[in-house]
Order: sequence, then C-alpha cells, then structure tokens
Amino acid sequence: MGVAIIEASMTKFGQRDAWICELLAEAGKECMADSSVDPDDVEHLYVSNMASGEFEGRTGVMNALAHDLGVMPAYSERVDQTSSSGGAGMYEAWQSVASGASDMTLLVGGEKMTHRTTPESTDVIASITHPVEYKHGLTLPSFAGLTARHYLERFDAPRESLARVAVKNHENGVDNPNAQFQKEITIETALESPVVADPLRLYDFCPITDGSAAMVFTTEERAAQLTDDYVVVSGIGGATDTHVVHERDDPTIMGGVVESSKRAYEMAGLGPDDLDVAELHDMFTILEFLQLEGIGVAEQGTAWELAMDGDTAKDGELPINTSGGLKSKGHPLGASGVAQGVEVFEQLVGEAGPRQVEADIGLACNVGGFGNCVITTIMEATQ
Amino acid sequence: MGVAIIEASMTKFGQRDAWICELLAEAGKECMADSSVDPDDVEHLYVSNMASGEFEGRTGVMNALAHDLGVMPAYSERVDQTSSSGGAGMYEAWQSVASGASDMTLLVGGEKMTHRTTPESTDVIASITHPVEYKHGLTLPSFAGLTARHYLERFDAPRESLARVAVKNHENGVDNPNAQFQKEITIETALESPVVADPLRLYDFCPITDGSAAMVFTTEERAAQLTDDYVVVSGIGGATDTHVVHERDDPTIMGGVVESSKRAYEMAGLGPDDLDVAELHDMFTILEFLQLEGIGVAEQGTAWELAMDGDTAKDGELPINTSGGLKSKGHPLGASGVAQGVEVFEQLVGEAGPRQVEADIGLACNVGGFGNCVITTIMEATQ
Repeated sequence: MGVAIIEASMTKFGQRDAWICELLAEAGKECMADSSVDPDDVEHLYVSNMASGEFEGRTGVMNALAHDLGVMPAYSERVDQTSSSGGAGMYEAWQSVASGASDMTLLVGGEKMTHRTTPESTDVIASITHPVEYKHGLTLPSFAGLTARHYLERFDAPRESLARVAVKNHENGVDNPNAQFQKEITIETALESPVVADPLRLYDFCPITDGSAAMVFTTEERAAQLTDDYVVVSGIGGATDTHVVHERDDPTIMGGVVESSKRAYEMAGLGPDDLDVAELHDMFTILEFLQLEGIGVAEQGTAWELAMDGDTAKDGELPINTSGGLKSKGHPLGASGVAQGVEVFEQLVGEAGPRQVEADIGLACNVGGFGNCVITTIMEATQ
Repeated sequence: MGVAIIEASMTKFGQRDAWICELLAEAGKECMADSSVDPDDVEHLYVSNMASGEFEGRTGVMNALAHDLGVMPAYSERVDQTSSSGGAGMYEAWQSVASGASDMTLLVGGEKMTHRTTPESTDVIASITHPVEYKHGLTLPSFAGLTARHYLERFDAPRESLARVAVKNHENGVDNPNAQFQKEITIETALESPVVADPLRLYDFCPITDGSAAMVFTTEERAAQLTDDYVVVSGIGGATDTHVVHERDDPTIMGGVVESSKRAYEMAGLGPDDLDVAELHDMFTILEFLQLEGIGVAEQGTAWELAMDGDTAKDGELPINTSGGLKSKGHPLGASGVAQGVEVFEQLVGEAGPRQVEADIGLACNVGGFGNCVITTIMEATQ
C-alpha cells in the first residue's frame, strides 16, 4: 500500500524551558492542528526518543503523549535507535500504514538534553559504543577525529573542506526560524575554533539541543482525499553496521549508509542522480562527506570536492542540509530524524520559505551511533 | 500477508549473573539455532527492552545484539512500551512482515534488573506513572492495592480468590524449568505473607527478574516451507488507556485490554469462546481477574468465581498462565510479553512438556504500566 505524509512540523530547537513531555506535545499538537486530523482519527502514535529515562527520569512518554494529545485509545509506542530514533520512527510509521495496521499514524520525535551538564549528556550518548572501545575513551567525537584525520590524509583533502560544511550549514540555518543557531560563521572562525578531537574543532560538531518534530502518515488514497500538499514515501530502508567501529574494513565507508540507501533506492526505483535535495546527518562535518559517498552522490574520497566547489550549497547542484543540518539546526537525538523528514517534506510541498529550492525528490539519511544504525528515506512530491 | 511464528524460546528467568547484552544474545542465539534460520536471512531485528540505560547505563542494545548474533546488515531497533515492550515487539515484528519490509524477523525481549536494589528498580518502574499521581506516592503496587480493595468489596469477592491466582500460577511454574520460582505455595502462605499494599500481600506480586525470550517471524508461505511446527498470528491489536489512572471511569475496567482484545478478535474473526489457552499479565493477582473480564472471558465482577471454581487451572475450562505467569515465572520487563508468546507458541505446537494442554487457539495479553498500554495477540495452530 502506498504511504504518504500529509503534514510535518517542528518546534524551535535550542535550549528550551520545557520537559520532554511538553516538547513532544508541542510538536504533536501543532502537527495535528495543521493537518486538520482529528485526535480520534489517529490509530497509531510513535514516539522517537532515545533516553527520556536517562536524561530526565521519565519513562512511558508514549503514554503521556497519547494523553496530552487526546488520541486514546490509539496504539502508542516508543521507538529507540539512539541518534537515528527519528528515522526509525519514520520506518515504523511507514510499516504501520503499509501493513494495514493503521490508516492514520502520528509520529513525534523529541529529546530534552540541555538541563544536564555536557559530561552527563555525553556519558549517555557514549554508552552507545561497544565497551571494548568505550573503556579506552573512544567516544563518538573521538571516532570523528580519527576518521577525519584518515580521510584528509588518504584522499589529500584540504582541512578547509570540512570547515566549508560548517559554514554552509550555518548559512542555511540563518533562514530557518527553528534552528538553534541562526548566525553565519566564516571559514576562519571554524578553522580557528578550539580543538575538540584533532583535527576537528568546535565548529565541526553539532550542539546539544532540546526540541521535537512531528509528521502525519496515512495511505496515499486517503492523503489525496485530505489535502493537495502531501508527499509519498517511495523508498525507505534501514541497516546495521558493526558495533565495534574498528572492525570495519574501511573507516571511510559507512556500511549502514550504503546498505540502507541501496534498499531505499531499489524500493523507489531511483538512484542518486534523481535526487533534488537531501538532509544528511552532519553530527560531525566529516559525516556529511561520508554520507554523500555512501548514498552514491560522490565517489569514495571525492565528496570534499563538492564542498570546495559549492555543489552542495543551496544554489548548488544538489543542496545538502538546507535546514541548517544538525550542525546549526541542532540535534535533539530522537527529534533529529523526524526534523530531517520535516525539511524534505517542506521542500517538496514548497513550504520552505527562504530556504526553498526546486525539488521533486528528496532524501533523508539519519545515523545512529557512529554509523551503527542508519535509516534512509526517499520522498517524492505529488504535484 | 499472513504472518507466522516458526520458533520461540526463552532463557532461565531469575537472578542471572549476566548483563543485558549477554541475556539478549543467549535467547537470540538459542532461538536462531533451534529455527535453523541462518543469521544472513534475518532482515529485521527488534529488541524489546524498557530500560537498559536506566538499569545498567547501556544504550544501543539493538546494535550490540545485531553484532553478537552476526545478523548485520539487518535493520535493528529497540521497542519500548514499558512492561508491555515484549508485546509491542511482537506487534512490530508482525508489522515488519505484514508490510513486506522483512521476510524474516527476529524478536528478542530482555531486561536485567536484579543487580539494582528494589527501591532503585521500582523508581525506574514508577516513572511510568503520571506526575500528578506519582508525586502523591501512587506507584503501580499502590494502584493494585486500591483496585483490589475496590473489586473485592464491590463484587463481594472473597480475599481467598486472589490467593488462588497466586497458588495456581505457582503450581504451573513448578513444571516450567525456566521459571524463577519452581515451588508450590499454599493458600495460607499467600494469605499470611507480609502486607505490601493492603489488601495485597507479598504473594500477590510478581518478583524482580532477569531474563530474555525470543521468537522468529516470517510469512505463512515461507513458514510452511521451513517447518511443520509453526503458528499463525491471526489477530493482534494494541491500545492506550489514560496516563492518569484516576481519570478512568471505572477502576475495574482495563480499557486498553478491552480495546486491544476487541481489535485482535476482529482481525482473527474469533471471540473469547474460541480460546483454548491464554497468558495474562498477572504482575499483580488482581490483574488476572481484570484481564479475564477485559478479554470477554468473564462478565465484569465475576472472574473471581473462575479462580474459586478452578476453571482457570491447567485442567480447567480455560487454562490461564500455564507458564506460571509473571507471578512465578518472573517479570523481566522487556522479556515478559515475548515469554508469554513463547508459552502460547509451545502450547500450540505441542512442545509444552508437563505443562501441555489441548490447544489450537491461544491468546497473550501484555500490559504496560497499570493498563496504560496493552497488546493482545491471538495465535492459531496449523496442524
């Protein structure tokens, strides 16, 4: 059965004076109101969230949200795939409609993180990694630093190419009122910011963020009855890579990105050349290169050239992270994959305002851990 | 597409000298080995788990399990619905096959709890409840005590009827080598045990437990090619009830049970009279009565009579909790719903050993919170 998305919205991302349940309800209510879907029509409710219990001591957030939105007795469930929980929620929402289990599914992803200290937050995030690496201090930023060094040296890429990712995504974020940072930065600012994990510096990393995002899924048939502005999920696939990162054959190949995008392309009957816009998981600048290569837009070791040439800028050949990406929009773990979907949706239905590009086909790639779990989703415009 | 279960197994439940990832791998490996399914054939892997992060400081357990079982690049995800995470995992596994997303899905549910003190564990569990009640000390056992008092007085049921649930389930557990407790108790033991939440006493409550359980889902067509011993999931449905328990109209009606079983019956084209065996979520003895009434086996206020008359015993009209139930088998949160499925599977394929009853149709009802989220599953034998 064809699956469509009829509405998508997100809250302001940043340091928010609201707890997880309030954040989820904010995006959920707005999305429901915008879609004109009655709470009684919702049959399944998915909440993408990695760690409400660890961050806030609150569990059962799907039940709380079902209560706050008045969608009972809809089925409700929490989906966790660490930082790709949002993408996993999109996959579950898709499956719920495609299997006939639900005709109307609401997905809300969210995370509340900024009330904890950075060491506390990063401790929760680092517990994704395998103990054999974790015990030696190999956290996600460390992997990013090691991978960036390897990539730059092996492919003779200039350090500036990574800075250009940060500069581009900050530039895009200026036009996104919901982004955590709405300020441009210069190449110099990026290159001279404090070292975090050599050769990566502060501006190569996404921030810690609070926020939520939501989408409404239904059948294509029902979507066409309800609205003119809907998109079709024409391809979606997920894949898992090794838990121990150093077991991977090549540190510059994200196997989960390669495999999940392959599945999504096959399902959609499309390829990388068909894409008009994409949201990639730029938790670290280096990941934008690895994903551009993983989804087949660039050959291995060449994505840095796209950044240097401006091909991934808003006015480039394939605009990447028009939303500002995780880098400037922010990265509330469970919300990020849903927010990627929100941006692609808005681009395809022509609601992206100053960020608007010409796009009929868009892709979102959401990454958990250091590529440990990945979901790739392809959406197509219907107008 | 028809969905079948071709294998089901569980670990020993109890106080286990193993961490969550080891427990998950133990059930997963055994189930894979018994099913003769090759790791490469697994397309989706679901992990039902409520709180590995809160209990053990470990996240990303689906990635760890995919690694330990060698099923990469299968899609992997964690499903949480608090104490009904196992049932929710069954629903996701069903959806993955029914939607065509996966032809071969492995579900593993597990929880590691006994290394934490009882107050620490119950703190995690209590965080399911709504703050408006939680702040006043209304934990799940408190709700059970209040509900039991109300039930006994309103329906003129003898206190002994609750004790009979505990005695019956302990008797059944004796024949389950994987049960946490394999010992019979007497009515007197139950009635004279220490008060926990008046009128409920120690033996009205399930224990805190470590353990895991697993099942393999595939299409009916492929199941028939692979084995003679498979069951069909003919009905499955989930529902959410109010987060604030005191907002419910009638404290003796579990709305989530009523609604989810209605959906499962409708899908299966069956009713309560068709059932041959059932696993109900007896986290507290009183819940066995409320679920018998919720799934339509007994009229409101009369399920206690079934307990008094022995109708729910192994040799009764409708054997309930032949596995020993949560009461004596134990309740490792994320594993419990899967273990309910394991018992129904074994009964339907004739592998329940000394617990075996005559059964072609079985039901499992898995409850999250105090009936906050509920999944009901109906399985049918094929031989």
